[in-house]
Amino acid sequence: VKIGIIGASGYTGQELLRILAHHPKVEIAYATSERFTGAAVDEVFPSFKGLIELHFRKLSVPHIARDANVIFAALPHGQSMDVVAECIRKEKRVVDLSADFRLKDAALYERWYGKHSCPDLLSKAVYGLPEIYRDAIKKAQLVANPGCYPTGAILALTPLVEEGMITLTGIVVDAKSGVSGAGRSPSMTNLFGEVAEGLKAYNVAKHRHAPEMEQELSSRTGGKQVPILFVPHLIPINRGILSTIYARINGALSTAQASKAFQQRYGTEPFVRVLPSGTFPSTREVRGSNYCDIGVMVNDVSGQVVVISAIDNLVKGASGQAVQNMNIMCGFPETMGLDQIPLAP
Amino acid sequence: VKIGIIGASGYTGQELLRILAHHPKVEIAYATSERFTGAAVDEVFPSFKGLIELHFRKLSVPHIARDANVIFAALPHGQSMDVVAECIRKEKRVVDLSADFRLKDAALYERWYGKHSCPDLLSKAVYGLPEIYRDAIKKAQLVANPGCYPTGAILALTPLVEEGMITLTGIVVDAKSGVSGAGRSPSMTNLFGEVAEGLKAYNVAKHRHAPEMEQELSSRTGGKQVPILFVPHLIPINRGILSTIYARINGALSTAQASKAFQQRYGTEPFVRVLPSGTFPSTREVRGSNYCDIGVMVNDVSGQVVVISAIDNLVKGASGQAVQNMNIMCGFPETMGLDQIPLAP
Amino acid sequence: VKIGIIGASGYTGQELLRILAHHPKVEIAYATSERFTGAAVDEVFPSFKGLIELHFRKLSVPHIARDANVIFAALPHGQSMDVVAECIRKEKRVVDLSADFRLKDAALYERWYGKHSCPDLLSKAVYGLPEIYRDAIKKAQLVANPGCYPTGAILALTPLVEEGMITLTGIVVDAKSGVSGAGRSPSMTNLFGEVAEGLKAYNVAKHRHAPEMEQELSSRTGGKQVPILFVPHLIPINRGILSTIYARINGALSTAQASKAFQQRYGTEPFVRVLPSGTFPSTREVRGSNYCDIGVMVNDVSGQVVVISAIDNLVKGASGQAVQNMNIMCGFPETMGLDQIPLAP
Amino acid sequence: VKIGIIGASGYTGQELLRILAHHPKVEIAYATSERFTGAAVDEVFPSFKGLIELHFRKLSVPHIARDANVIFAALPHGQSMDVVAECIRKEKRVVDLSADFRLKDAALYERWYGKHSCPDLLSKAVYGLPEIYRDAIKKAQLVANPGCYPTGAILALTPLVEEGMITLTGIVVDAKSGVSGAGRSPSMTNLFGEVAEGLKAYNVAKHRHAPEMEQELSSRTGGKQVPILFVPHLIPINRGILSTIYARINGALSTAQASKAFQQRYGTEPFVRVLPSGTFPSTREVRGSNYCDIGVMVNDVSGQVVVISAIDNLVKGASGQAVQNMNIMCGFPETMGLDQIPLAP
Repeated sequence: VKIGIIGASGYTGQELLRILAHHPKVEIAYATSERFTGAAVDEVFPSFKGLIELHFRKLSVPHIARDANVIFAALPHGQSMDVVAECIRKEKRVVDLSADFRLKDAALYERWYGKHSCPDLLSKAVYGLPEIYRDAIKKAQLVANPGCYPTGAILALTPLVEEGMITLTGIVVDAKSGVSGAGRSPSMTNLFGEVAEGLKAYNVAKHRHAPEMEQELSSRTGGKQVPILFVPHLIPINRGILSTIYARINGALSTAQASKAFQQRYGTEPFVRVLPSGTFPSTREVRGSNYCDIGVMVNDVSGQVVVISAIDNLVKGASGQAVQNMNIMCGFPETMGLDQIPLAP
Repeated sequence: VKIGIIGASGYTGQELLRILAHHPKVEIAYATSERFTGAAVDEVFPSFKGLIELHFRKLSVPHIARDANVIFAALPHGQSMDVVAECIRKEKRVVDLSADFRLKDAALYERWYGKHSCPDLLSKAVYGLPEIYRDAIKKAQLVANPGCYPTGAILALTPLVEEGMITLTGIVVDAKSGVSGAGRSPSMTNLFGEVAEGLKAYNVAKHRHAPEMEQELSSRTGGKQVPILFVPHLIPINRGILSTIYARINGALSTAQASKAFQQRYGTEPFVRVLPSGTFPSTREVRGSNYCDIGVMVNDVSGQVVVISAIDNLVKGASGQAVQNMNIMCGFPETMGLDQIPLAP
Repeated sequence: VKIGIIGASGYTGQELLRILAHHPKVEIAYATSERFTGAAVDEVFPSFKGLIELHFRKLSVPHIARDANVIFAALPHGQSMDVVAECIRKEKRVVDLSADFRLKDAALYERWYGKHSCPDLLSKAVYGLPEIYRDAIKKAQLVANPGCYPTGAILALTPLVEEGMITLTGIVVDAKSGVSGAGRSPSMTNLFGEVAEGLKAYNVAKHRHAPEMEQELSSRTGGKQVPILFVPHLIPINRGILSTIYARINGALSTAQASKAFQQRYGTEPFVRVLPSGTFPSTREVRGSNYCDIGVMVNDVSGQVVVISAIDNLVKGASGQAVQNMNIMCGFPETMGLDQIPLAP
Repeated sequence: VKIGIIGASGYTGQELLRILAHHPKVEIAYATSERFTGAAVDEVFPSFKGLIELHFRKLSVPHIARDANVIFAALPHGQSMDVVAECIRKEKRVVDLSADFRLKDAALYERWYGKHSCPDLLSKAVYGLPEIYRDAIKKAQLVANPGCYPTGAILALTPLVEEGMITLTGIVVDAKSGVSGAGRSPSMTNLFGEVAEGLKAYNVAKHRHAPEMEQELSSRTGGKQVPILFVPHLIPINRGILSTIYARINGALSTAQASKAFQQRYGTEPFVRVLPSGTFPSTREVRGSNYCDIGVMVNDVSGQVVVISAIDNLVKGASGQAVQNMNIMCGFPETMGLDQIPLAP
């Protein structure tokens, strides 16, 4: 399969290149970058020296459509939708890593992101969380790759929501993210000097990933709304999201029962690892890999369940999941090219 | 005043030395260290070169009682109680930075820490949170300096609990701490290689600081229990605790009302800074200082209030607060020696 | 003394504010910022909440000249010279933290930085390294505050050069700097994600601070040139420069003799700490303070001497030294307001 | 091939497990750990969950010799030699990652490390730097895997030494290493709180890796000694060594000529990447991979050449190189199992 990557010089683009460079069934045919048009990929990313022989090109949908069958769009939200729509019109299959096709409701999109230019495509897009939508992804022409925070939160809550084990109100997602999640564009707030040796919350109860979590979790309840109180924090590490989730249990529930629900729900999933009862994950243990590790514990005294999930925001939270979706779309083994073992320390 | 510091070569001891070296009313007369007995302080801590002329001595209560009037005990829990008891018998005033005299209930202490050797002293000890116990601290012979996590959590919850603004059940304290909180003893789990570029929870719902929070918050309610679901996380920074706290509001409550409760409660406090409505603190902004910064927001949709507090775990969370207590005990201005401006970046 | 700070919202400006806020003899009367004109200082820097009541203003030399007697200019090089010249014409005393008045030779300035607009002022400016130019600083109207790297390197080499203990050719300065040295302007290269968990050299043998080192060291030799091979490295820490310096010894020299030369040269200096023979400094031990710590060792086998110096690039390498210069200019005790004890960990 | 790993719970052991878990020609048959005897590998290293099904065993050479054909010894120096000797007597092939068989001269070993128990084996051991000793490694029964610092330094100096391009005296190796190089044993000096936000030299001109560099570089000169002034620094990152090397050029030499010497020497090497003239490496660009990246520049003014090399100390500096050696010994393709792409950010 010939691959095109639009917006390949940001962090998710860089990570797509890393993963796809060793994928046995694909060839990277086209990679675009506004900032680095004309530069060799291994000049911009010296880590790829000897591994990727390619120059960044200026985005031209006709050209990319001519040279590639499957297209990854790794542009910022708002900039992605028109480009994706054009690729779709050219009958290409697209995995879009932006937020532009994740929300099904155009009005909701507009509230959080701004006007949508092609709302008709929203219903066509499949939300690319394979653990939920695997069958639909197989046939999808357009996959909306999930946000990094939603990936960690939805995987951590789905078994409990599906089994009716928790009250659907009052759920708290306290997430901690590494800085690469903020992207590679110059900004004062993400300078090393502003972030290192520090720790803070941001967008408290008003982050754009909350409606995405709510949409997907509500879809598991037979129509009941699942409001999420979402508080993200910025942590001075490169990669990783740890989501600590609190929910009230719905009637009696033991840690063993909750654990079992996770084991059963994810037993055959290649990239979700449910940890032994009473143990919890660390971002180190998934770094550089496509795993989502999950631990769960019920606290009887407070009548709450604590679920903690860890992902690498650039892999399972972005580019790894995008490749997983591509594998499913193309009929490749789902784990192909995604066998990186977590790098610790 | 002549000061003795027992256990001065750990992080809280080092921080006591840093703060007291410039305190205009005290002289550091005696500092003990098991590991570094006989060594010059500025050999063990070269940062003090030219500032502190002292050698670490082996602990001898008779000697320290002879040379010092006020004693800071910075020993691990379990090791502190007998030493403190001996100092008390010698009629010294003591600020104990261990956990040994924080819990009023000897049975509770035993459950979380082990057998207590001098339970009779528990009622004599005053819990050293000046924002609550200032008057009692003035006259105390023994002050139990609060734990780092409890300091941040109790200050963030007290106004809401006192004003009856929140439901007393289901409170969640999701705290994130720098690594210096784990102390300076050799251990594999706190090696740089085990912590850096990582992120994890530990002692989920079973950390020893939870009963301390519960004791103090319950004391604000006229007897009602306040159970806390406490989940601490280890973050790869040196200093700082950020506590993100979730509670259900008790009837209608706006962010402005909640904010006002904090402003009123802490309006004259020298070391609590209530942030403007809608803004939240960062550990960077308090680093190296004795401040506790607090931000609050009510989320109507979920009926919850979010309070976030930031402290430097070694200052307001330990040694700075200990000096604040000493100032109160000795009748010095409460802020004396504690005017360090936060160091950022 | 009334103080004006031009360019107060960068890192050196922020650090000037931190230091001057507690200086007993000064009042900060005026602080400018292009980016944050009109904003409260403690809104831009929440660490100063309760400590600094001031709003950032737009730069107007007439206004600042009216309100302030001593002016710190913390602008980027090239932008500073005209502003400083205007302040000088208004008979203000100025400490300029940019590179614009450090090099005595306008042609040399032009080669490294670009055209100089007021070369006549170069001879009027005093290079603000108190350990060398204290007397001239006393009477100076314009002090050119040294660069961060030159401060560490010149202090580490001066005794050896002055005593003729080393060969003047082949000197290597291998310096390692924290990221705050690169300033607070948005840039991709200083993003956390580009710097953390990494390590690299930059501007190898072509950094603009090399001619500054060469000018000052040559001035110690009675006219002989001292070429420096300068290789700076970027290290993922906020603050600190460690300079490891290699030079060939000029005839027989023991570590003890070299050490003694440093002890004698800096014996009465308040901010240079010569470490015991055979020990070397760490940036941690000077963090947040105005100290320069120096260790020295002669290696007989290779006939070389190794000198290592550590400074906090924002304090002794910039704003602390600027305040030290101001103290000297104003006749205040040289250490006034500069008694911050290093913050470790 | 059946593999035994002795000392598999340290960092180099952990990294051997990571690399070998995906090696298509090997099976990990036996892994020992004193600290974690009996524990499942994925309990000690949760990153391996689902990837390695094995329990750590107590070291028994007869057992490991029965179950494995090729043995990696990842024990501390001093502890390794007897175990290795026993494996050799049982006719196993061994790659030893300790320092015990690197120095050819037993007296030199004794001076730096202590008494050697089996000096007769020293001559039998092949120094495992494939870029120099590939042919000997093929037939070796015992390979002494190079130290991390020597790997980076020797690869950076070999072409210049072999071509006679530099003076053999006065060479300086200023190396900067991440903390994982110090191992995983509990120690105060490697605690996060002692290392983070800091920067220091250690073992200045007296590190045990200097004689290893000297032995190997001298072997390239036809008998002339090559003394090395080696100054290692500790940097707060997990992985990576950057070696900045200074040497006087021997007659006229341009950057292009020096660069060409590196290109020619390493043109066909799979794991040495010579960077374009005038560019220098970063540890980020090799992280997690077996590459050694090298940049070179001649500085005419000072008559010196600067060479900078970057490796991941746990991969090319230890376990990756060990697997490379095993591949050579076993006749596998040299890059087998070593195709990890550097992980950045």
